[in-house]
Amino acid sequence: MNKENLIKQIKEKKSFLCVGLDTDINKIPKHLLTLSDPIFEFNKQIIDSTKDLCVAYKLNTAFYESNGIEGWKSLIKTAEYIPKNIFSIADAKRGDIGNTSRMYAKTFFETMDFDSLTVNPYMGIDSVEPFLEFDNKWVILLALTSNKGSEDFQNICDLNDIRLYQHVLQKSSNWADDSKMMYVVGATKAESLKEIRKIIPNHFLLVPGVGAQGGKLSEVAINGMNKDIGLLVNSSRSIIYSSNGEDFALSARNAALEIKLEMEKFID
Amino acid sequence: MNKENLIKQIKEKKSFLCVGLDTDINKIPKHLLTLSDPIFEFNKQIIDSTKDLCVAYKLNTAFYESNGIEGWKSLIKTAEYIPKNIFSIADAKRGDIGNTSRMYAKTFFETMDFDSLTVNPYMGIDSVEPFLEFDNKWVILLALTSNKGSEDFQNICDLNDIRLYQHVLQKSSNWADDSKMMYVVGATKAESLKEIRKIIPNHFLLVPGVGAQGGKLSEVAINGMNKDIGLLVNSSRSIIYSSNGEDFALSARNAALEIKLEMEKFID
Repeated sequence: MNKENLIKQIKEKKSFLCVGLDTDINKIPKHLLTLSDPIFEFNKQIIDSTKDLCVAYKLNTAFYESNGIEGWKSLIKTAEYIPKNIFSIADAKRGDIGNTSRMYAKTFFETMDFDSLTVNPYMGIDSVEPFLEFDNKWVILLALTSNKGSEDFQNICDLNDIRLYQHVLQKSSNWADDSKMMYVVGATKAESLKEIRKIIPNHFLLVPGVGAQGGKLSEVAINGMNKDIGLLVNSSRSIIYSSNGEDFALSARNAALEIKLEMEKFID
Repeated sequence: MNKENLIKQIKEKKSFLCVGLDTDINKIPKHLLTLSDPIFEFNKQIIDSTKDLCVAYKLNTAFYESNGIEGWKSLIKTAEYIPKNIFSIADAKRGDIGNTSRMYAKTFFETMDFDSLTVNPYMGIDSVEPFLEFDNKWVILLALTSNKGSEDFQNICDLNDIRLYQHVLQKSSNWADDSKMMYVVGATKAESLKEIRKIIPNHFLLVPGVGAQGGKLSEVAINGMNKDIGLLVNSSRSIIYSSNGEDFALSARNAALEIKLEMEKFID
């Protein structure tokens, strides 16, 4: 999906919600467990009940890999089930030397057909470039993450008072423009969004951490929005696990709707 | 595998060679392609022909994932085929927020039974800790990698003249001791090994980049060895692709033997 279509979708739906499919076999409703692929069945019903409310789905690959071959089957089936007019994110946080990153790019952009992949910047330019060689595919580079450990290294300051995550933003924004690069900035770091917008005014940001991790949507919207909206705010657990009864899909819809209605105010 | 057994194996075999199974369907001998799982058959023959010469096998997950479900089957079968007395490395460079890293740990340490996993430090302590909760399983944390892009961020200097990769070594060596943590230091950065050994004198280092990437074994051994040897030097392409004819396994053995004989000199 290109940037124009992503923006169009956001404005039409009045939503910048990304639903995170961090689907854990131990947390889904018990009545699904008798089906042949409970994870896919769960995802399918979540997608069916939220696809008019969100503009993106993010699949956290760890949750699928942990189930081995069956998990990869669920991942592939879910990726194929996501409607083509909704932005799909493989949240895999890959990155390696060039010839290896090329293999990961093949995995997520050819073997599967995701619109985008989260990538870890630690190994630098040649670990990221292979992902940038695909038309209408996106790299979503980790910048400032939502977890406590983000303090350990991402905030290290150099001699010119520039932090590591600011270096990541500055350097990598020369590797590709805002038509194929986005950044991960955690909702728990909303106070940093203003200065981040000075470095990358036009890029989309994928913002996890609203909901279970404690980030606030209003702070993210006020500090992070740009002329194109420029945000994909992800919520996973607080939407998909809002009920673990037979009403789980409807309950997820209601949780997604609540966030979408809050988003509408900022789009209007 | 615990540290004692790893050291014992190194001293008995007089080798600290790790063979990298970066197995690419486009590079393996054509006569294997008619078999039901050419990748596994290739790996099996490489393992059979090198297992007395090396102390570890490293499987680069990207090469398997890129083949989809079939690739994961080859990965699982290869992991199971590696003899239990040889150290196995899932070179997957994972790392995410805590609940997600826990899923990756489950994937590589429970669903599969690798001895170790390479982990990216960018997200800090809570992205690494879940991997440290398993007995006799290892985290191999990226410190200073072998690729050109390692200059982009890993060498950024803070106000006290400490580089990012040195921060990674210092901080993370407090998260776990040298019985469950190793570090990746590229062979192309051999000149840095002396000062790295001042920070982490006792840890094992996984050293990729000898061979195709241009690193020199002698420089790595002279600068990086400690009282326990303390090195696993990886070579992938220059061993496994040394011939693409029917003699590939024997040719790989000869390439591995050449490196092992050079290693012997440093162990004696």
